[in-house]
Amino acid sequence: MMPNKNIIPHLHTTSQKQRSELNGHKPKIFWFTGLSGSGKSTLAGKLEEELHKRGMHTYLLDGDNIRLGLNKDLAFSLDDRTENIRRVGEVSKLFIDAGLIVLSAFVSPLNKDRDAVRALVAEGEFVEVFVDCPIEVCEKRDVKGLYKKARSGVLKDFTGISSPFEAPLNPEIIIYSAKEEISESIDKMLNYMKNTNE
Amino acid sequence: MMPNKNIIPHLHTTSQKQRSELNGHKPKIFWFTGLSGSGKSTLAGKLEEELHKRGMHTYLLDGDNIRLGLNKDLAFSLDDRTENIRRVGEVSKLFIDAGLIVLSAFVSPLNKDRDAVRALVAEGEFVEVFVDCPIEVCEKRDVKGLYKKARSGVLKDFTGISSPFEAPLNPEIIIYSAKEEISESIDKMLNYMKNTNE
Repeated sequence: MMPNKNIIPHLHTTSQKQRSELNGHKPKIFWFTGLSGSGKSTLAGKLEEELHKRGMHTYLLDGDNIRLGLNKDLAFSLDDRTENIRRVGEVSKLFIDAGLIVLSAFVSPLNKDRDAVRALVAEGEFVEVFVDCPIEVCEKRDVKGLYKKARSGVLKDFTGISSPFEAPLNPEIIIYSAKEEISESIDKMLNYMKNTNE
Repeated sequence: MMPNKNIIPHLHTTSQKQRSELNGHKPKIFWFTGLSGSGKSTLAGKLEEELHKRGMHTYLLDGDNIRLGLNKDLAFSLDDRTENIRRVGEVSKLFIDAGLIVLSAFVSPLNKDRDAVRALVAEGEFVEVFVDCPIEVCEKRDVKGLYKKARSGVLKDFTGISSPFEAPLNPEIIIYSAKEEISESIDKMLNYMKNTNE
């Protein structure tokens, strides 16, 4: 479709390595996947806070800053969800290249879509965090009132009700958000970073 | 099209202000616009190098990392160019929110598209840099051989030949890349930053 061969790369002098050195840590994506209401955004926000306290350079991507901006042209059909996650993956890759630690919190229900993001970056840079919470608990919380709308049919293509969720096959981290204290979950992620040499 | 009202903002605790404080400088977009071959990418790369040397946190967006990734589904019709610039604008906004200085180098031929990006961020954050170079000079350079292809008709929708370029009406900075030394152009931009309190 597009004349890729006519895009000739420039050799820019400032590299990911230099940007990372200035930041003082390695870049990484923490990719939070799970049902609506499982606690992804809360966990991502809390992890960002802890990393920021430690002087790390971070950025959080979630529906709030993506669905209302970059991806405001997309809805929630499976095709649009795939394109949503593809774009978030590409944006995460740019942030990785910029040397930041990205926290991406999206339902991202399909293995193939998450795997495609993993394939975009270097080994070890993609950390899949499965926020595992029974749908009964998510639905009971229903912080945003979305489950109610989905059950009544007002909201279509809703993950767990009228659209599938595929649990990750080999996530780097599993958070049992219905059972764990949030501090426990955060420690799990901070320890993971320590053990993988940040 | 999409149920915007079902995206309920989270109040995240780490703010743009906090990220900027950690970086030690304000975020900004230097938006380079001009014909193919005018020197946008070279100038953006050189400016990034100088800012990085000064300990600033930067990222460069150009065709190399955007057209082959996030926007690989887009071609060069006017509609696709508008969508290309819209997405780059939204990504630049995310980097601004992350506290970085973004250098965006895209032909971005239309005033309305550039103005739409300007409108996305706060006053003073968008710095339009018009890389003003006569088309005869760009065509003579023809570093990428694109003008030759455009003249022969192999390459369609080529800015300046078969697609329009609208010069910015009120750019913050004008670079006369056919006349100025590159060091002179870079000083112009560094001085602009100093004078606008970075």
